[in-house]
Order: sequence, then C-alpha cells, then structure tokens
Amino acid sequence: MKEKLTLVKVGGKIVEEEATLQQFLKDFSMIEGHKALVHGGGRSATKLATRLGIESKMVDGRRITDAETLKVVTMVYGGLVNKNIVAGLQALGVNALGLTGADMNLMRSDKRPVETVDYGYVGDVKEVNAGLLASLIRQGVAPVLAPLTHDKKGSLLNTNADTIAGEAAKALAKHFEVTLMFCFEKKGVLMDEEDDNSVIPEIDRETFLNHVKNGVIRGGMIPKLENAFQTIEAGVKEVVITQASDIHKNTGTKVR
Amino acid sequence: MKEKLTLVKVGGKIVEEEATLQQFLKDFSMIEGHKALVHGGGRSATKLATRLGIESKMVDGRRITDAETLKVVTMVYGGLVNKNIVAGLQALGVNALGLTGADMNLMRSDKRPVETVDYGYVGDVKEVNAGLLASLIRQGVAPVLAPLTHDKKGSLLNTNADTIAGEAAKALAKHFEVTLMFCFEKKGVLMDEEDDNSVIPEIDRETFLNHVKNGVIRGGMIPKLENAFQTIEAGVKEVVITQASDIHKNTGTKVR
Repeated sequence: MKEKLTLVKVGGKIVEEEATLQQFLKDFSMIEGHKALVHGGGRSATKLATRLGIESKMVDGRRITDAETLKVVTMVYGGLVNKNIVAGLQALGVNALGLTGADMNLMRSDKRPVETVDYGYVGDVKEVNAGLLASLIRQGVAPVLAPLTHDKKGSLLNTNADTIAGEAAKALAKHFEVTLMFCFEKKGVLMDEEDDNSVIPEIDRETFLNHVKNGVIRGGMIPKLENAFQTIEAGVKEVVITQASDIHKNTGTKVR
Repeated sequence: MKEKLTLVKVGGKIVEEEATLQQFLKDFSMIEGHKALVHGGGRSATKLATRLGIESKMVDGRRITDAETLKVVTMVYGGLVNKNIVAGLQALGVNALGLTGADMNLMRSDKRPVETVDYGYVGDVKEVNAGLLASLIRQGVAPVLAPLTHDKKGSLLNTNADTIAGEAAKALAKHFEVTLMFCFEKKGVLMDEEDDNSVIPEIDRETFLNHVKNGVIRGGMIPKLENAFQTIEAGVKEVVITQASDIHKNTGTKVR
C-alpha cells in the first residue's frame, strides 16, 4: 500500500507576510505524515522589481518575464521566500528542503512559444523526475517547491505555482497516495457566495457539471475545478480546496 | 573502501560573471566521480545592495549583515547565484542540487556573539548533518552549497564560504574519501611569488612550518594552510589549492 502524502499549494499573500507566514507554517507542520509545499511569491517579486526600477508587466494576471525579471523571480522565489519558509519549518521540526525545478532536474519545461503574447522566460512543464524526491520524502524530508523550472539548456523559467503543484502531485502519485490541497480565501467551494459556511464538502464531476449548469459554480472556480478533475484522472487521490488556516483539519471541499 | 568525492570551493568572482561561470562549470563537470561545489557571491550581493540603497559595511573584509543585508544575501546566494549554477550544471548533464544550510538541516550555526564587532546575522557553524546528503551524492547528485546556514530557530545566517567548504568536507569525510579543492588566483602555493610556475606540488605540516620560518609562505596563505591542515586532521584526505581552470587536472598544491 502506498504511504500518504499531502501536497499543499499556498499563494504568495500568506507566505510573504511574516505574521501570516508563521501561523501558516505552524498549521502546515501539524499535517500528519508526509507533506510537501508549493509556494508563490508574486507580491514580493513585484515589490523588489519596483525598488530596482524594473517595470512589472502583466497580461491577464500573468507576469511577462524578461531577462531582468527572471533574475528578480529567481532571487525572490528561489531565494528569499523559499529559504525563509525552509528555515521557518526547520524551527518547527519539519525537515524542509527548498527546491526549484532545476534542482535534481525535478521539472523540465519548454519556454512558452510566442503566440499572441510573448511571456518571455516562462516555462510550460514537460517532464517531472520525482524518483529521488520520493525517496527523500520517505526519509522524512518535506520538499518546499518554488515556482521556477528550467529548460535543461541552462536557463531557469518562471512557472505558475498552481501548475507546479499539479505536476508535482501527478508525478508523486506514482509513489504516494497524494492529497493535493489548494489554499483558498474561503473555507472551500461555496453553494452560496454570500454564506461562508455553505461549503460543498465533496464534489465529483457529475455534481460539478450540474452546479455549473445551475450557476452555483462560476467564474475562476470553473477552470480551477476542471484542473482538479484532470489531476485526479492522472492518479492523484483527491484535491482539497480549503482555507489556509484549515490545512491540518479534515475540512474544505474534497474533489474526487 | 570509501568512494571518492571532490568538493570544490569557488569564489564569487568566477561564478558571478556569465563568461567565467560557463567555463568554470564546464571544468567542474569534467571532474571524475562524485563532486560537490561551494560558492561565494559577495560581489553580486554588494551590487544588489547598492541598487537597493543598502550600504555594504565591511570590517576586515567581512560583511556586517543587518536584517536588510540578510535578505539581500538570501536572494543573491540562495537564489540568483545558486540556482544559476544549478541550471548551468544541469545543462552539462550534472545532476546538481542547490542547498543552503537550512535545507535538510544541513548546517546549523550560532549567531556570532558580539565582542568588539557586531557582525549581525552571521553564523558560526555548530552542527553538520550530512547523512541524507551523502546518500544523494551516492545516487549521482552534485550538491551546490550557498554560503548560508540557519540557527534552527527560524533565522538564516550569513556564513563564510570557506568555512562552509571546510565543515562540509569534514562531515562528508565520514562517508567519502574527500578531496577539498580551493580555487585560487594562482596555479597553487608558490615558492616564488614572482614566478607563477614555481608551484609547490605537495606540502605537509613540517615543510609548511619551514616555509613559514624562511618567509616563503606568508600573509593570507598562512591561515589558509593552517585551516587546510586542521581539515586533514579531521579526516579529509587532501586539500588542493589550485587555479579554477585546473580543477579537473591533477595539478596545484596538495596539502596532506
């Protein structure tokens, strides 16, 4: 039987502020069994870029990563945010290991081809090598993944943290029974947007399609859930959408 | 019998310039067998600090690391320099893994106590946990160590790269037959400072003491060699002082 692994994706908002970060790391450390973390860091990257006089260009919420911006995200995602999380987890007794996709050739990606928009040094994941990582996890290591990959030709590439989380979860599903957890600003997917306690506890594709048809689930939640179903079809046990403060509890919306 | 491991320490000067970095990584990749790298990055840190309007304070060539400077070195050493080396090595087929002392609790240090100078967030290494690392090296991983440690209380600490190299070499000597290689601006320790080809091929403590007495070895080379002898007494097979471009050749000064 496969051992369990909980892989949490948390946005920059929580890990970039010292106070929320500390609470989050405590909650994360309370997850039982094997665990891994994927983090963002966009706000800090934008802040540093501004201080350096580098303009942050966004198209549809996605960062255009020119050569200077790639340096900024390498420093912020791979250095500042990642290593602060690692040091914070070590203080809590979690044997964290900070990684980018270049480390141990964990995630190779291709530079996104220019179609309507040139996103610059942005990578689409092509290959995940999780063997060594799985063996480290079994030995008690908790990987902390920064949203950076590499092209195996010497260049790092900026990569969406949700994508990193999904790809890592799928690759690790060959070695573990994986729960992929997305930290959300609400307690889960809500039946009624106005009622924070109307969390849908469990959702499968059929209920999802019904909820979409009836307008209960809409907007950005639709692609989020579609990705979740794809991840599950690729072998991940379940995807949980929950509040950051609830990651160690058995709550939120379970996508199965 | 223990397998061989070559651990190379290279200064910032070489790894911070794209052209010298690429050549160095090629030379490093040509080292046979297990290998590991420890790098500096002080020039890039100073450059970034300047751009951010943070004053770089040095006392006797050592950086005073206040809270803002700690962020800068975390970004530069742990992010920019480290991850560029890792991506560069991956392109050359070396399965590099970038690490700080916080990762896998590799190196715990104490914040240096304030005596005559307050160095700020600077760590003196107290404990090295190289077990997991040794097992990764045996599986073909080449660790790339940034000059950062942590206090296991949540804080990263700036740590001298030569110290990191020495401590890592000593800890890994329990698992491997370690050659510790220091990249130097000359071909090795010279008999005659004016003659670049007067490299002393091999030196033991007795010859060292004689050379010091006769004034052949002086200045900064004395503490460098004293450290080398201490490292050897702690179990490292040999310390080599050589030019960066010669790390894959069997040249330089061998301290035994």
